[in-house]
Amino acid sequence: MSRQALPEGWQPPTFGDVQAAARMLSGRVHRTPVLTCAALDEILGGQIFFKCENFQRIGAFKARGAMNAVWSLGEEAAARGVATHSSGNHGAALALAARSRGVPSWVVIPEDAPQVKKDSVAREGATVVSCRPGLAAREEGLGRIVSETGATLVHPYDDDRIIAGQGTAALELMADVPGLDLILAPIGGGGLISGTAIAAKGLDPALQVVACEPAGADDSRRSFVAGRRVPIESPQTIADGLRATIGVRNFAIVTEMVDDVVTVTEEGIVEAMRFVWERLKIVIEPSSAVPVAAMLEGACRPDGRSVGVILTGGNLDLEALPWG
Amino acid sequence: MSRQALPEGWQPPTFGDVQAAARMLSGRVHRTPVLTCAALDEILGGQIFFKCENFQRIGAFKARGAMNAVWSLGEEAAARGVATHSSGNHGAALALAARSRGVPSWVVIPEDAPQVKKDSVAREGATVVSCRPGLAAREEGLGRIVSETGATLVHPYDDDRIIAGQGTAALELMADVPGLDLILAPIGGGGLISGTAIAAKGLDPALQVVACEPAGADDSRRSFVAGRRVPIESPQTIADGLRATIGVRNFAIVTEMVDDVVTVTEEGIVEAMRFVWERLKIVIEPSSAVPVAAMLEGACRPDGRSVGVILTGGNLDLEALPWG
Repeated sequence: MSRQALPEGWQPPTFGDVQAAARMLSGRVHRTPVLTCAALDEILGGQIFFKCENFQRIGAFKARGAMNAVWSLGEEAAARGVATHSSGNHGAALALAARSRGVPSWVVIPEDAPQVKKDSVAREGATVVSCRPGLAAREEGLGRIVSETGATLVHPYDDDRIIAGQGTAALELMADVPGLDLILAPIGGGGLISGTAIAAKGLDPALQVVACEPAGADDSRRSFVAGRRVPIESPQTIADGLRATIGVRNFAIVTEMVDDVVTVTEEGIVEAMRFVWERLKIVIEPSSAVPVAAMLEGACRPDGRSVGVILTGGNLDLEALPWG
Repeated sequence: MSRQALPEGWQPPTFGDVQAAARMLSGRVHRTPVLTCAALDEILGGQIFFKCENFQRIGAFKARGAMNAVWSLGEEAAARGVATHSSGNHGAALALAARSRGVPSWVVIPEDAPQVKKDSVAREGATVVSCRPGLAAREEGLGRIVSETGATLVHPYDDDRIIAGQGTAALELMADVPGLDLILAPIGGGGLISGTAIAAKGLDPALQVVACEPAGADDSRRSFVAGRRVPIESPQTIADGLRATIGVRNFAIVTEMVDDVVTVTEEGIVEAMRFVWERLKIVIEPSSAVPVAAMLEGACRPDGRSVGVILTGGNLDLEALPWG
């Protein structure tokens, strides 16, 4: 499933592709609300606009890309179903998208994924295939399924239609909040941030886009600095949605269009998550807290600017909160 | 501070009083969003519309009543400040309202109130006066402050302007969701439910209003059945906002205008709270979960109806969650 080089002649998705995805998604995913918090603006020193993808279908932005990918398939391919590996949100999203089109789906999930994410995949109607942790075991399980069923493999992030679909969150955010100076989003495999950058730069080339990453899973930061993909062996972070290695297409887009990649500490992530729960009264998962941590820790200060933040999801085990 | 009989010639606040309060509150409190959840509608069997007062200023609907009470005072009385006793949300609300008018406030808080509520009162600029738990200690502390400062006592619920202010949440909900069949709200002292009933019946006499109460603090249910106020000695419930005894004015309004008072178990409250956190991805405090518990436990089933639910607040200690 992982690619090591760009396909020959590959061109990144365009602003028009993100707009087309937005038309495809209309009525199929939620147009999520944008929340603000005056007390928080005062603390952070800026106007912060939170795009609440935790309220999205399946509880995460991943519904956007998966829906775009599944509904873009031809009839014949769609009928054979779709398959992926995922630690959770992409799996649930793909299952939802497949169900919405009436086709089967298979999701390979590592056994150490949060129970709430496994339940969510099963609830959406996918056939769940458990595997040992680690990319090799995931890919082996997925390869077997694809060869047995003829299902189309839908990569969680290194895929043009996924990238275009994820970009629709930023498109809505910019429509609801004209004049943003900066958009912050987390980076794991890079599906969201690459779609976000295409949408943002397409509408306003001066709009800054900054990717936020846990220091314990900082392959994107290292890759951004080195100018080539630098995978890390065993990423360590509570932000379970951000442990993936940046994809080949995603890295190409990030290199070209993202203004900076910044990192945050684990303590910062937990504090930011708690801050959002207490002040905004919404439930976000650790990955969503990473851009908030970047503002609180100072890796990317608002400095009086209008800042859009994509809160990516709200799926986590409520029994195992990282405080108390 | 507690009254044992209605003032002579007292008439309850009218629908017009709630409308006037809504004008007074415009720009001073948030018009909170209404959330829905398709998965939840399917489970509960109805269309449920959640009025999110957990997103209100100070994190609870109490900002409405307090703001209406403080801004309704004459100049001279306002200048001497306001005082109350409160286990938290009303105290923070009164402090906020006083600060917004530039006048002082004093809040007597029992020492066993959640820390997050005490912090919230202090953050809003009130002078916090700690007292032992129990109504007698609260009233003694408050009486001393009023006699020393000349501050106006603003009762948390047994007060016409508080009642009219709290009714504005239902007014907004009905404007956003025409054709509701039923509104559910929790009942503690009865400020919210009496304002809600005045607003609902004023707009549509056929709209049902049901008060929801923890079985461990069921003085309102007992009073509703007996036709007279029946205080209970030591209410036991996790819903710390609902331990108060129903007020004299509130009881008169509930008797006349509320269709039923139903009770829920403690386990039901915890499960409902968790259900809302997991499915709606929002943080609500235990008191807010009481009407949701009434739907889940069957004390008040949606039965295919359009149901408005007032989620009253989102202030609680995140370290001490009732699960895990």
